Amino acid sequence: MSNVFGKLFKLGSWGESHGKAIGAVVDGCPAGLEISEEYIQTFLDRRRPGQSILTTQRKESDAVKILSGVFEGKTTGAPISLIVENTDHHSSDYDHIKDWYRPGHADEAYDSKYGFRDYRGGGRSSARETIARVAAGSIARKFLNEKCGTEFTAKISEMGNIENARKNGDSVGGVISLTIKNPPKNLGEPVFDRAEALLAMAMMSIPAAKGFEIGAGFNAAKMLGSEHNKLGENHAGGVYGGITSGEDIFCKIAFKPTPSISKLQKAKNKNGEIGEISIKGRHDPCVAVRAPVIVESMAALVLMDLWLQNGEFKIGN
Amino acid sequence: MSNVFGKLFKLGSWGESHGKAIGAVVDGCPAGLEISEEYIQTFLDRRRPGQSILTTQRKESDAVKILSGVFEGKTTGAPISLIVENTDHHSSDYDHIKDWYRPGHADEAYDSKYGFRDYRGGGRSSARETIARVAAGSIARKFLNEKCGTEFTAKISEMGNIENARKNGDSVGGVISLTIKNPPKNLGEPVFDRAEALLAMAMMSIPAAKGFEIGAGFNAAKMLGSEHNKLGENHAGGVYGGITSGEDIFCKIAFKPTPSISKLQKAKNKNGEIGEISIKGRHDPCVAVRAPVIVESMAALVLMDLWLQNGEFKIGN
Amino acid sequence: MSNVFGKLFKLGSWGESHGKAIGAVVDGCPAGLEISEEYIQTFLDRRRPGQSILTTQRKESDAVKILSGVFEGKTTGAPISLIVENTDHHSSDYDHIKDWYRPGHADEAYDSKYGFRDYRGGGRSSARETIARVAAGSIARKFLNEKCGTEFTAKISEMGNIENARKNGDSVGGVISLTIKNPPKNLGEPVFDRAEALLAMAMMSIPAAKGFEIGAGFNAAKMLGSEHNKLGENHAGGVYGGITSGEDIFCKIAFKPTPSISKLQKAKNKNGEIGEISIKGRHDPCVAVRAPVIVESMAALVLMDLWLQNGEFKIGN
Amino acid sequence: MSNVFGKLFKLGSWGESHGKAIGAVVDGCPAGLEISEEYIQTFLDRRRPGQSILTTQRKESDAVKILSGVFEGKTTGAPISLIVENTDHHSSDYDHIKDWYRPGHADEAYDSKYGFRDYRGGGRSSARETIARVAAGSIARKFLNEKCGTEFTAKISEMGNIENARKNGDSVGGVISLTIKNPPKNLGEPVFDRAEALLAMAMMSIPAAKGFEIGAGFNAAKMLGSEHNKLGENHAGGVYGGITSGEDIFCKIAFKPTPSISKLQKAKNKNGEIGEISIKGRHDPCVAVRAPVIVESMAALVLMDLWLQNGEFKIGN
Repeated sequence: MSNVFGKLFKLGSWGESHGKAIGAVVDGCPAGLEISEEYIQTFLDRRRPGQSILTTQRKESDAVKILSGVFEGKTTGAPISLIVENTDHHSSDYDHIKDWYRPGHADEAYDSKYGFRDYRGGGRSSARETIARVAAGSIARKFLNEKCGTEFTAKISEMGNIENARKNGDSVGGVISLTIKNPPKNLGEPVFDRAEALLAMAMMSIPAAKGFEIGAGFNAAKMLGSEHNKLGENHAGGVYGGITSGEDIFCKIAFKPTPSISKLQKAKNKNGEIGEISIKGRHDPCVAVRAPVIVESMAALVLMDLWLQNGEFKIGN
Repeated sequence: MSNVFGKLFKLGSWGESHGKAIGAVVDGCPAGLEISEEYIQTFLDRRRPGQSILTTQRKESDAVKILSGVFEGKTTGAPISLIVENTDHHSSDYDHIKDWYRPGHADEAYDSKYGFRDYRGGGRSSARETIARVAAGSIARKFLNEKCGTEFTAKISEMGNIENARKNGDSVGGVISLTIKNPPKNLGEPVFDRAEALLAMAMMSIPAAKGFEIGAGFNAAKMLGSEHNKLGENHAGGVYGGITSGEDIFCKIAFKPTPSISKLQKAKNKNGEIGEISIKGRHDPCVAVRAPVIVESMAALVLMDLWLQNGEFKIGN
Repeated sequence: MSNVFGKLFKLGSWGESHGKAIGAVVDGCPAGLEISEEYIQTFLDRRRPGQSILTTQRKESDAVKILSGVFEGKTTGAPISLIVENTDHHSSDYDHIKDWYRPGHADEAYDSKYGFRDYRGGGRSSARETIARVAAGSIARKFLNEKCGTEFTAKISEMGNIENARKNGDSVGGVISLTIKNPPKNLGEPVFDRAEALLAMAMMSIPAAKGFEIGAGFNAAKMLGSEHNKLGENHAGGVYGGITSGEDIFCKIAFKPTPSISKLQKAKNKNGEIGEISIKGRHDPCVAVRAPVIVESMAALVLMDLWLQNGEFKIGN
Repeated sequence: MSNVFGKLFKLGSWGESHGKAIGAVVDGCPAGLEISEEYIQTFLDRRRPGQSILTTQRKESDAVKILSGVFEGKTTGAPISLIVENTDHHSSDYDHIKDWYRPGHADEAYDSKYGFRDYRGGGRSSARETIARVAAGSIARKFLNEKCGTEFTAKISEMGNIENARKNGDSVGGVISLTIKNPPKNLGEPVFDRAEALLAMAMMSIPAAKGFEIGAGFNAAKMLGSEHNKLGENHAGGVYGGITSGEDIFCKIAFKPTPSISKLQKAKNKNGEIGEISIKGRHDPCVAVRAPVIVESMAALVLMDLWLQNGEFKIGN
C-alpha cells in the first residue's frame, strides 16, 4: 500500500473504518501557521455523516485531536499528528456478508492482493479514510489562503434522482465542480508533475471517482482551436503547459453511485459461487453528497505541495 | 521542473523541440529483456510527423539510438539511455512570434515561471518531448507483454471535422480510447497510488490533455448503483478500490485542439499589449492524430512501475 | 522537515519529547505478519529510560498501542499506526534555559530555521523521537527474521569512562558495533541506493551520530589491495558494489557525548550574548548506552525497504 | 537499480565503462545560471585518467557536450543532458577474466542479482560512472557559489605507500578530507533527511568508500561532553540536529584500496572454483587520488538539493 501523499508537504493517512481511529500525519508544514482543533473541526463537520437524510445515519462526532506539531497555537515545522476516534461502528452489520464480495467494492481486489479482507465496513477502502484528507487539507488551504487569498469551493453540479433511488434501496452517482479562486501563479513542474496531472491524480484517488476534467475538459475535444484559444475565456481552466496562470482553476470530478445498496443484487463469494445479497449498514445513497469538502481538500494538498516545490525556480529570486 | 516519471521503473526525459536531441533514460528495467533499436523504432514511427496530410509536415526520421543498458541484445539492469537527434528544425519559423505569447500555449507560463522562454517551437513544452515517453513505454510494454500477455491499444474515438478546420487554418480536438487487454492483476497501491489515479496522472501529463475517465467515467455519474454494480459488465473499467482485477481496463482521454493555428487570432505580447498573430510552422491540425501511441506508452509505464512495486505484498508469496 | 523514511516500507515518525505522545506510522508492510503490542514492547523496553544508573531517570513506561493495520493479530497491508504516550515530562525543568541555546544541541539551528524552538526537552530534536524508529524497526526485523533468519545485534564497543564523567556532571561518547547475521542476499540498488549508502544515511540520521563505517572502514584506508581482497575474510563487511553478498554485515557508528550536561559551560542566548549555564533535566551520561536497539532498528528498516524493492530485478524470476 | 540522486535537484546517471558513453541528466536546476562546456570540463579534467603516474593510463579526453537545457549560455529550467563519449576502451583486456569474479569487485554481486555481468571493465560498477557525478556537481557548486559564496575543497589526507604498492602490482587505500566553506545556513530536513545523513549517503555511494565521519567523527566518541560542546570550536563540523549552522563543514571519507591489482591473488569463478588471477587493464593504484573532485561534487549535489527544499520553512518568509 502507499498511504503517503505529496513530496514536500506530505500527508500520511492511516486507520480503518471499523478500527480504533482514523489519523493523519502532516509532514512538511511551514512553522508559524495558526491552527486549532476547532478550525480543523469545521471542515470535518462538513464531511461528517448523519447530518441529513441524504447521508449515512452512522453517528460519529468525528472530533479531531492534535497530538503533535502545534505549540502555543502555531505550527512548529514538526509533523502534525491528527486523530479522530471511531465510536459508532456497528461491525456486526457486516457479519452477513463476511464471505461475500460486495459488487462494485474493493472486497475481492483486497482479498486477491493481500490474501486478506477487512469485511467490517471495507476497512481501509472505506470512504471514512477521507477524514485524514480533509483534516490535512484544512491546514494546506489555510496556508494558501493566508499567503495568496486562495479559496477552494466545490459543489454538486450533477446528481441522479436520489429520492427515487433511496426508496428502492438503490443509489445514484454525481459530478462535483471545483473552483479555485486566486490560486498561486507559476505552480506546476513540467513535464510530468503538471498542475493538472497532479490534480487528476489527487481527485482520482478519492474512493468512487471515475472521471476528471479541467477547463473545457471533454468539451474541449469538440472545439476549434480558434475558439478554445480565445483570450480571456479561460477554456484551459487556469493551467498552461502544466503551470498555473493565476486565473481561476475549474475542474469536474465524476463519482459512480455508492456501491453499497440494500436492493438485492447478484454477488460472488470466496468460492466463486454466485448468489444474491442485500447490503445492510448505513450508507450514503450518493457519495457525491459529502464529497465537496474532500475534493477541495485534495486540491489544497496539491497546490500546497507545488507551492513548496516552487521555492527557487530561477536565479535572481 | 520535474522530468522523472515513476518510482521503481523511472523515465527521465530531456531535450527541446529545436535543441540537439530528445532523450530518455530508463532506470529500473529488469535485466534480461531483449531490446533493439529496431523494436523501439516501430513505436516511434507511429508517432513520427510527416506521415500523412493529417499531421505536421516536419520531416524527422526520429531514428533512435541505444547508448547504454543493453549488452548483447539484452537489458542488463543498468539505465537504458535512448537518444533521437533533431534534424529538421526550422527555428526561423518562430522569429516572427519571438515577442508574442501564442494563445493556448505555455509561452507566457514559462516566461513567468522561469523568467525565460524558448520561443523556438516551444522548447521543452513541445509535444516533441513525447518521443521520450514512447521510447521508454516501448520497453515497459514489451516486458508486460512477455510476462502477462498485456496489450495496449489506443484509438481516436472522437474528432472534429479536421478537413474543414485545416482549410481555415484552424484545428480540432479529439478523444482517445484506450483498451488494456490482459493487464496484470493486483496492481495499484491504495489509498493514494491507485491504478486509476496514476493512469489519470500519466494521461493528464501529456500535452493538450484536458480530461480523463475510466470505465463508465462521467456516465457513471448518471447510473444507478444497481446498474453500475452488475457482475460481468465491467463498468468500473477493470479497477476496484484502486487495484486491477485482471479484467480489461478502459480509459478515455480528451485532447484540446492544437493551439498553433495559422488563422489570425488575438494574442498578448511581453509588454501586455494585444495584437493579432498568425502562427507559421508545421503543426498537426489535431493533436489526437498522433496521440494513440503516446497514450499506450504512458499506460505501459504506469503498469510497469506498479508491477515492480508489487513484489511482496503478502507473507507467503 | 522530512519525517518519512523509506521508499516502499515507509516509516512516518511524529511527536515531541514533551508533547502528548510519540508515534510511528508504518506504511507498506506486507499482509499476514503476526504482530502484537507485547512483541513491539520488548524492543521499546530495551531503549526505555530509567532502567539503570547509566541512563536518564525519566520514568516512562513507554507502553505502545497499535491503532491500525493489524486485524486478528496479523498485519493487513494497511498502515500500522503505533502510539506511545508521554507521561513523565517535567517541562518546568527547562524554564531556566528558555532563552539559552544549549551548546551542542539543535536549539539555535531550529530557532534559525523555523523561527521557533520547542525549549521543552528539545521538542522534535530529542532522542525520544527514536521510539518511533524502534517500534517500526521491530516490525521490519520480524519480517526479515521469518523470511531469511536475519538477526541484528548491536553492542557498545567503545565508551569513555562514564563513572568519572557522571560525577563531574559531564558526559562521554561511544561507538556501537552492529552485526547483521544472515542478511538477505542481493539487496542494494546501485549506483546511488547502495546498501552501505542507505545504512550510512540511516545511522547518521540518529541523533548524536558522527561517524559510520562498514567492514574494515577507516582501517581499509591503511590496507593493501591484496590484503583487503582476501577471499573469505569479508573485509568489505558483506557488501560489494552496493549489493549484499549474504555474508555477515558489520558496521560501526560513532556517537558524540550527550550534549546536555549539568557541568557549567559557556552558552549563547537569543541576543547573541555569552553566559554560563548548567543544564538540569534527566539525561543519559552517554547516548550510546541506549543506542544499540536504535541502530538495529534502523538497519532493519533499510534492509526491509531494499528487500521490497528487490522484487523483480531480472526476467525469469 | 536506482540511478537517480536527489529530490528536487535530480541527477540521472547512465553509461557503462566500456559502453558508448557516460551521461548525466540534471533535472530541477533553476533557470538563468550561466553554464558552458568549458566550465564543466575543468572539473572533469580533475578526475580524468592518464594524468600522472599515480593514475590509470587509460587515455580518455572525457570531453563533455551539453545536449539540452542551456540556451544562449544559460540554463532554462529544463533538464540538462550532458554526455561524455568513451573512446579508449580496451575491452579485450578483460577477456582473460570473463569467467572469474575479481576479488573485492562487484562482479559476483551483479551476476547474482541481475543474472548477468558486464565483464568489460565492470560495466556500470566502474568508477568511470562518477563522470556523471562530477559533471552534475559542477552545476550545483556554481549555483551555490554564486548565491552564497560556497566553496568545496577536498584533499587526500591519508594514503598508503603508493610507490611500494605499485612496484608489487598492489594497491593502497586512502582518506579524503572535505571542507565546505560558507555553506548555506539552515539546510537539512530533520529528522531523517539531516544534512549529515544525506552527506553520508552521498559519500558512501561513491565506489570503494567504506567510512564517513563529520566534525570530530569517530574521535567524538572519545571526548567529554564539556570538550565537544565548546563554543567556537566546531567539533560538530557545522551541523546541529541535522541542520547546517553556516559554519564550515568538515567531513572525512575512507576509501579501500583499488580492488584491481596485477599481483596474483586467489579468486572464485562462476562454477565456484578457486584459482589465481592477475588483473590486467589500466587501474589507479589508489582510488583516492582522483576522488577529491568526486567528493566535492557529491557534497555540492546534497547541499543544492537541500537548498531547493528549503524554500518556505516558516511563515513570513
